[in-house]
Amino acid sequence: MSINIKRNQLKRVVIVGGGLGGLRLAEDLSKANLQVVLIDKNNFHQFPPLIYQIASAGIDPSSISFPFRQIFRKRKNFYFRMAEARAVFPDKKILQTSIGKIEYDYLVFAAGTTTNFYGNANIEKWAIPMKTVSEAMGLRNAVLSNLERALTCATEEERQELLNVVIVGGGATGVEIAGALSEMKRYVIPYDYPDMDSSLMHIYLLEAGDRLLAGMSQDSSKKAYDFLTSMGVDVQFGKMVTDYKDHKVLMKDGQEIPTRTFLWVSGVKAQPITGIEGDHLGRGFRIVVDEFNRIPGMDGLFAIGDQCIQTTDPAYPGGHPQLAQVAIQQAALLAKNIQKIAEGADDTQLKPFRYKNLGSMATIGRHKAVVELGKFHSQGFFAWVLWLVVHLRSILGVKNKVMVLLNWLWKYVSYNDSIRMITYATKPKEVRDRLKREQTTHLGTDLLENEED
Amino acid sequence: MSINIKRNQLKRVVIVGGGLGGLRLAEDLSKANLQVVLIDKNNFHQFPPLIYQIASAGIDPSSISFPFRQIFRKRKNFYFRMAEARAVFPDKKILQTSIGKIEYDYLVFAAGTTTNFYGNANIEKWAIPMKTVSEAMGLRNAVLSNLERALTCATEEERQELLNVVIVGGGATGVEIAGALSEMKRYVIPYDYPDMDSSLMHIYLLEAGDRLLAGMSQDSSKKAYDFLTSMGVDVQFGKMVTDYKDHKVLMKDGQEIPTRTFLWVSGVKAQPITGIEGDHLGRGFRIVVDEFNRIPGMDGLFAIGDQCIQTTDPAYPGGHPQLAQVAIQQAALLAKNIQKIAEGADDTQLKPFRYKNLGSMATIGRHKAVVELGKFHSQGFFAWVLWLVVHLRSILGVKNKVMVLLNWLWKYVSYNDSIRMITYATKPKEVRDRLKREQTTHLGTDLLENEED
Repeated sequence: MSINIKRNQLKRVVIVGGGLGGLRLAEDLSKANLQVVLIDKNNFHQFPPLIYQIASAGIDPSSISFPFRQIFRKRKNFYFRMAEARAVFPDKKILQTSIGKIEYDYLVFAAGTTTNFYGNANIEKWAIPMKTVSEAMGLRNAVLSNLERALTCATEEERQELLNVVIVGGGATGVEIAGALSEMKRYVIPYDYPDMDSSLMHIYLLEAGDRLLAGMSQDSSKKAYDFLTSMGVDVQFGKMVTDYKDHKVLMKDGQEIPTRTFLWVSGVKAQPITGIEGDHLGRGFRIVVDEFNRIPGMDGLFAIGDQCIQTTDPAYPGGHPQLAQVAIQQAALLAKNIQKIAEGADDTQLKPFRYKNLGSMATIGRHKAVVELGKFHSQGFFAWVLWLVVHLRSILGVKNKVMVLLNWLWKYVSYNDSIRMITYATKPKEVRDRLKREQTTHLGTDLLENEED
Repeated sequence: MSINIKRNQLKRVVIVGGGLGGLRLAEDLSKANLQVVLIDKNNFHQFPPLIYQIASAGIDPSSISFPFRQIFRKRKNFYFRMAEARAVFPDKKILQTSIGKIEYDYLVFAAGTTTNFYGNANIEKWAIPMKTVSEAMGLRNAVLSNLERALTCATEEERQELLNVVIVGGGATGVEIAGALSEMKRYVIPYDYPDMDSSLMHIYLLEAGDRLLAGMSQDSSKKAYDFLTSMGVDVQFGKMVTDYKDHKVLMKDGQEIPTRTFLWVSGVKAQPITGIEGDHLGRGFRIVVDEFNRIPGMDGLFAIGDQCIQTTDPAYPGGHPQLAQVAIQQAALLAKNIQKIAEGADDTQLKPFRYKNLGSMATIGRHKAVVELGKFHSQGFFAWVLWLVVHLRSILGVKNKVMVLLNWLWKYVSYNDSIRMITYATKPKEVRDRLKREQTTHLGTDLLENEED
């Protein structure tokens, strides 16, 4: 296999990852005088802030996914390739991917993060992460099939394991999924499972620190805690989860909670790439970049968003928070800077990155959200409406906006998350075999020599 | 595990399968004075006539799926269990399932059919069937990822294998998916894959007989053929597919077509159940029933829909066609007959089944359909509108109707099947392990003795 993109007279920018940052960068640069190649392991962009609503059966996966080829339909000099980046050879200006190698003039890493299990093999094996649409679909299937099995299992002990939900991590994702599942417990389970005692279902939210939503203010943290506890979620602080054995979550202080629905949204680490190691990596394996998002000492290499760390912004000496807004703003600036660099500009003509905090928000449930926009803090109904409007606006495409809005309206009126199907796509053998091949191709660093194409 | 449903003073009807027949029967009987238990391997009802539109990326799986628990929310004496039926012990009036055994007074098989590969192991291993929502999602993923790989594969030969689509079976499903894929080829591929020559994509529809839509009239068959060929589908008759080897479909007459997208919609066989064998089975392994859908010689046992064959209807001495309408009409009548039987009626008080043919229809593409309602035959635009209206009306639930209508309108205006994501739900280990356990439990016939519960 080969990437199969012909070079033309234009300089080539390769972008790894079509998340919020990579997508914005590709959009801006594909209007410029450059050849743009976007590489992603999925054929679609996914909108991270609403992934948890797939898990809680509120919206369809397709409503927050958008095929890259659709987005870039009318752009000339734009190419998409579905592949995983494996290794970079900065001396040769070549990127190795799961489907072959590609030359670049400029290469931008925008592959974001993956779930961090902090090296615990049991947790990695058993816990359910929720970073992607696929994982959220898997979580929805798991929650629903655990409920089905709670009706028919052999022992009381197993029933309790099936009905306990343990969520590890009190950031925005943990808070939002805890809220959504507690609404499912209250508004859906008693009607769907009349022959089950829904009060047996317990939702635990475990946080290692001493508050929820550590990125927000103390009053927002407190309010999120009040919202969740009023909704019946058992929120516990100072809880270090150390292991998972025999269907039990084990904590450092000796506490155990039996569960078969064990959600892990406790931390992330940057996507690794062979060729960028050692001193090039900072906290959380993030790629260290300068004020122009360049990787120091590596000509033509850049990184943006969650995958990078930038300590040159005076307001954020420890690096920026890993938020959508940072990625998007870095992408917008880098698009301009790369065009200048391609035109031969020197450093003095480039603009250094400064993050402009537009605020942050999290929703907990019906009429319950916390919002911070600079000094403006809001909690409750108005914050909730604001959250809905901001997120609806951010979804790509008119049709997806309409679909999400309809699902929300439906849920609001009916108190019902309607997409409660347990479905797995069958994987035909031809596809299964190919995926296996591609997952094991080009994994070493001595690939350039051994390659067929 | 056990089914865990307490008996009460009411007689118990167990229904295996929640397709169109089983669902109607459960709905009617759950309003009567009986305890109704519905068993299905999925937790949702799926609407078969539109499954092909999931495969062609036109609608969301959730739009034509409906959770059983949702449908039966307000019914007392109704129980749903997600399980597979394994074996029946008519002498003991016990049904063995993947999650344990259950006693019955009346047991109705309504599990429909499964794809028939006619014993060919290669075809079973490689072909992609399209009977279920899961299979259709798998097909969508396969078609889209084959297109991605056609851009980057190593040889011309492999490219042609990836771009050829071979559909075996010229019934309604084969005709409809051929039409939908040819529209994707025409309206989507050239814009989504500007760097690929879409004229290389070939769609073959192979039929063993001498016409399409064998269940309809000659003029409808002819018109469907004309529609498909005008849309660029290569329709071939008298083609017996005998094997699939080295990415090639082999035919009895020696012809070969290379393809990695090999759809098999060529035949069905009734779902098997241990305990009902030999003389009890007719053509296509269908369970032989009398005019009241009873299984002769087996007290309290019934079968309806595609899973049964009934040769007592004077108009259909060879058995009814395997159509939705037959299943629904049999279900509606059996619901009444079972109530009478439960009240102690004898055969003279029961009503024998007579199928009332309400007509049949198939859609081929935009403004192209064939419809037969008794002597009224229609082809083209009006038939197409009629097809849309009839199918939209049949979809369960207001929200699903709205969602499908919106997707159809969107597609009509934009010429765009919008759900072109390649997504697989991640399967958490807890779920994976349990599914494996349940798939291998209770597979023998000596189960009643060995069981734990």
